[in-house]
Amino acid sequence: MPERTEIENPFHRIMNASSIAFFGASNSPTTMGTTQILHLIKGGYQGRIWPVHPKEEKVLGIPAHRNVSELPETPELAVLVLPTNIVPDILDECGQKGIKRAVIISGGFKEMGQEGAELQERVNAVAEKHGIRFVGPNCIGVINAHNSMNFTFFPYTLGPGPLSLLSQSGTYVTQVLHYLRERGLRYSRAVSMGNEANLDLVDGLEYLGEDPDTGAIALYIEAIRRGREFVETAGQVSLKKPIVAYYVGGTETGARSGSSHTGAMGGDDVVHDGMFRQCGILRAPTVEEMYDWGWALACTSPPGGKRVAIISHSGGPITSMADSCARHGLQVPILSKKTREKIAPLVPKTGSTANPVDLTFSMNPAVMVSEIPKIVYESGEVDAVLIHGIMGSSFLREMEALAPEMIQHPQDPEKLRNIIDYVHSGLAELARSGCPVITSTFSGRDDYAVDYVMRNDVPLYPSPERAVAAMAAVMRYHRWRAGREN
Amino acid sequence: MPERTEIENPFHRIMNASSIAFFGASNSPTTMGTTQILHLIKGGYQGRIWPVHPKEEKVLGIPAHRNVSELPETPELAVLVLPTNIVPDILDECGQKGIKRAVIISGGFKEMGQEGAELQERVNAVAEKHGIRFVGPNCIGVINAHNSMNFTFFPYTLGPGPLSLLSQSGTYVTQVLHYLRERGLRYSRAVSMGNEANLDLVDGLEYLGEDPDTGAIALYIEAIRRGREFVETAGQVSLKKPIVAYYVGGTETGARSGSSHTGAMGGDDVVHDGMFRQCGILRAPTVEEMYDWGWALACTSPPGGKRVAIISHSGGPITSMADSCARHGLQVPILSKKTREKIAPLVPKTGSTANPVDLTFSMNPAVMVSEIPKIVYESGEVDAVLIHGIMGSSFLREMEALAPEMIQHPQDPEKLRNIIDYVHSGLAELARSGCPVITSTFSGRDDYAVDYVMRNDVPLYPSPERAVAAMAAVMRYHRWRAGREN
Repeated sequence: MPERTEIENPFHRIMNASSIAFFGASNSPTTMGTTQILHLIKGGYQGRIWPVHPKEEKVLGIPAHRNVSELPETPELAVLVLPTNIVPDILDECGQKGIKRAVIISGGFKEMGQEGAELQERVNAVAEKHGIRFVGPNCIGVINAHNSMNFTFFPYTLGPGPLSLLSQSGTYVTQVLHYLRERGLRYSRAVSMGNEANLDLVDGLEYLGEDPDTGAIALYIEAIRRGREFVETAGQVSLKKPIVAYYVGGTETGARSGSSHTGAMGGDDVVHDGMFRQCGILRAPTVEEMYDWGWALACTSPPGGKRVAIISHSGGPITSMADSCARHGLQVPILSKKTREKIAPLVPKTGSTANPVDLTFSMNPAVMVSEIPKIVYESGEVDAVLIHGIMGSSFLREMEALAPEMIQHPQDPEKLRNIIDYVHSGLAELARSGCPVITSTFSGRDDYAVDYVMRNDVPLYPSPERAVAAMAAVMRYHRWRAGREN
Repeated sequence: MPERTEIENPFHRIMNASSIAFFGASNSPTTMGTTQILHLIKGGYQGRIWPVHPKEEKVLGIPAHRNVSELPETPELAVLVLPTNIVPDILDECGQKGIKRAVIISGGFKEMGQEGAELQERVNAVAEKHGIRFVGPNCIGVINAHNSMNFTFFPYTLGPGPLSLLSQSGTYVTQVLHYLRERGLRYSRAVSMGNEANLDLVDGLEYLGEDPDTGAIALYIEAIRRGREFVETAGQVSLKKPIVAYYVGGTETGARSGSSHTGAMGGDDVVHDGMFRQCGILRAPTVEEMYDWGWALACTSPPGGKRVAIISHSGGPITSMADSCARHGLQVPILSKKTREKIAPLVPKTGSTANPVDLTFSMNPAVMVSEIPKIVYESGEVDAVLIHGIMGSSFLREMEALAPEMIQHPQDPEKLRNIIDYVHSGLAELARSGCPVITSTFSGRDDYAVDYVMRNDVPLYPSPERAVAAMAAVMRYHRWRAGREN
């Protein structure tokens, strides 16, 4: 791909468009286009927005134009949420105006059979004529969380983060946003790839490899359209930043379903397994693991080996973690006498200092989340730390609700939040200082401690085994990369 | 175990105690015992509560006695949250009073080494002298959600349900309650087994096998103390109701951690695998799958085979489901022309009727959650139904928050909830009528549709693959059972 290295990847201008022509939004709240432009307008995007509509004077308060030719400038990007049959003509008008980038949301193309495939070919011809590069068709749009550009069907309120996603399903970009917020994840870039008539996974990978905001890349794949180029590009990007892929086209049933979804047929599972391994991609078996591992890979410092410390006040979860570590090939070494003596004053006598470190019961969360982890990590006897049981305000709140008469000093929520933030700041500090640390809890994001840990990019999972699996993925990637670098 | 079949299982009286002597609660909100009696008092338990305390006149408003001997009646159950060293003497006093059942919360026994083991032996001797059967020591208590009896460390507010749990970790009984509420699970009975000095997993299994409120049984196991009896009892219970076990003692690291947790050493993984298979127990690889599968097994009607329909408006999740079905050995048959013609009027022309049924976009959720499922199931071409994308109020609420000016007819929340309940009632009806149906969503329980589905015991998981895995577990169990019955 020599020509690719000489020109700018088309995604740069799409993701950083300073102005957008928007087709298919009106003032009716029940149409897709209106919802999508609403999220662009309300989401904090600072560029200019040019609604184009044959009848409306204004769209959601913004002056509209009847035709793209009437715009006083040439927008950097066109977004099309239009009936299928008029897409080629409107794209042609965009090309005449000099627009070079587009996102085509409209469906009804190759995924719909022969007639749709022909229409998609017409779109391709128009794009080629004008030198337009585009995402889609049959997609849900793109998100750049670092400039608040989002014109998908769901509002994006998670804030900017380090994980980027290329997805051959719009659902996994947008319908998951509530799910991702509850788990503390935040996007850098997210692209609903659609039918990939023009820009595809290979282009997206190349772009994300160059994107300084992206720490790790997640891929949802039903079919890889350019196998050789995919392996080449992914192999290069993997040396710079981790990639995790969730591939569902490798079974007959998965391939059949994918084909009617985005018009492409998946291929042999074992072959894909080999492809992924060859270019350092971690293959996630489920969509949850794709997000779980992607987030850990984006946030966690590289561990130097596979020895972990397990720290908690809960005997069940540490035993689950210990068992899970063994199954993932991670080591849980018994700590030296010297280190055990150092942490002993912090551990109740009902507890254990061996590793897993079991605190059984402790009133001060800082002991579990930072004091012991720091001592253990600095001993040099482990390469990483796992902690289960992040919890702060929720128990107190439940108690307040149940028996207000027993709480002699009810805490003002803001003050309580400050205390909990302070108590957990050592954990964030430890992670920032280079200690690979991953945590888990059964509490939700309404708990202040959980929220603090999530806001500070310390990976936090809803079960002990998912924390271990994420840590194992981080170690697997860095082992592969170290092997390539030597 | 001939004697076991002749006398009542000791758990019956523990779980249905009409009066409880409670040791170790005071009026200080920072002690464990006080928190635990608080949950008993406030949780709706209708039996009598007798706090016993050497100094307090009253405990949380309830008259206390200095010694169990002073009580005007003999309580059916004693709960001990006391310093380790006085447990044997207090239990002896309970025995003298005629109390025959106890739950010993206190830790510091066999899990703490030689000295603790000796103390545990003293407790055993006292119990034997008086014929006391007890749970623990070193546990967090028990929950009977059907009579609101909960004296664990966390409040139980989920309501009564069909899933029972025997757990060698208190965390997996109580610290998970927030997690379980968010996922719609509800206990029938839950027991934190502790060190199993007296009552153990075998007793618990036998009891739950007899318990009419229990539809399925989940087990968290670090070590099985009576292997032969376990296999015998589990094998009998499995023929009546499903059992799912999460075993973590099969690796060296897991066994070491478990040993310092509950004082018992796990055993060979492969041997346990064989034991579980022999008695029809499904082995869950993680604690989340233990709850996931347990809930599906408790709620889902028996499927007659392994053919499933997959229905959604999201192309990604149905492809994930289709791929996951293939990996679990489930079939996703293409529907007959006749059935496809029946559902065609309900599916937009951008969608697919083949199976997976892809609605792409539909305004009326009833089409996806009940109308199509009913037609497809009644065709006889599938044995079960999977649906992804349960969602109701949350999108509307986000829209309201983002652009209140666009919502011309804001819905009063109560009215909206009624509409959403009505729209989803067909799904609950279908499940009740015998159709095995399992669902998934990325929305949370704050969404009215999600809440309705959860309240109506239709299993609902936070990812498509977890719905498939749960369905596969249900099918696996019923296939095993059908094989045994023939």
